[in-house]
Amino acid sequence: MSAPPQSAAQLVDRVRFGTDGLVPVVVTDCHTLRLLVLCYMNREALAKTLAEGLVHTYSRSRGRLALKGETSGHVQAVRQIRVNCDGNSLEVRVEQKVGACHTGHYSCFYRHWDPDRGDWVVDEDQVFDPDCVYT
Amino acid sequence: MSAPPQSAAQLVDRVRFGTDGLVPVVVTDCHTLRLLVLCYMNREALAKTLAEGLVHTYSRSRGRLALKGETSGHVQAVRQIRVNCDGNSLEVRVEQKVGACHTGHYSCFYRHWDPDRGDWVVDEDQVFDPDCVYT
Repeated sequence: MSAPPQSAAQLVDRVRFGTDGLVPVVVTDCHTLRLLVLCYMNREALAKTLAEGLVHTYSRSRGRLALKGETSGHVQAVRQIRVNCDGNSLEVRVEQKVGACHTGHYSCFYRHWDPDRGDWVVDEDQVFDPDCVYT
Repeated sequence: MSAPPQSAAQLVDRVRFGTDGLVPVVVTDCHTLRLLVLCYMNREALAKTLAEGLVHTYSRSRGRLALKGETSGHVQAVRQIRVNCDGNSLEVRVEQKVGACHTGHYSCFYRHWDPDRGDWVVDEDQVFDPDCVYT
C-alpha cells in the first residue's frame, strides 16, 4: 500500500508524535498478525513509508532515517496502517521479505523467558544466515 | 504465569530500560497473537507484573504504577514474556479479560487508515459498553 500524496499528508497530520518528535510503531505480519519489530518513526519516516509503501524508521542511535531491510534487502511492504485509541502509536501490518531481525530470525522477539532456567530461551529457528547476508 | 521471586529479579536485571527508566511493552493475545496495546513499564511495574502475573504499567501521564484493568476489571493474565534482539523491548502474551481498550474494543488498534476517505475507519465491534463499565 503506497498512499496518494494528499492522503499521506492527512495521515501524518492525524498522528500524535511525542515531545521527541517520534511515534512508536508496532510492525506485525499481515498474514499471522505476529509481532515482528517495534520501531520509531518521525514525521519524515512516516511520510516516506507512506510514499514508498515500504517501512522506513527513524534510528535513534544513528540519528537518521533508514529503510528497514536497507542492507539485507529484507524489506517490509506496507499492507495496512492502524492507530491506537489515543492516536499516539501505530500498528503497521506488512508483508515481510525473508526475515525482520538482523540475527537471522523472522521476528525480533525470538526468545521467551524461562523461569526455571532464569534465562531467555530461543524458541524459533533462523530463517537466514546473518553471516552470509551481512558481509 | 507468575514468576518465583528469584527468577523475577533475574528477568528485571536482564532488560535494558531506557534513559527514562522505561521499557516499551507490546501486549498481545496469547491465542491469536493479536496486538492489544502498547504500554510502558519501569522496573517496579515489571517486577509487580511478574510477581502477580497480571500486567502492571507505568502511566507516563499519571506518573504512577497502574494495574491494567484496574477500574474495569478487564485484567491481562500473563502467559509468556518475550524479548527483542536488543533486549530493550518486551512482548507480553496475555489472556485478556473482556477487552483491552477503554473505548470498549478488544484491541486498542481498532481503526485502520482508509486512503480514499483520508480518515481512520473503525473496523472492529465493541465487546463492551464503556458507559456501563466506567461509571
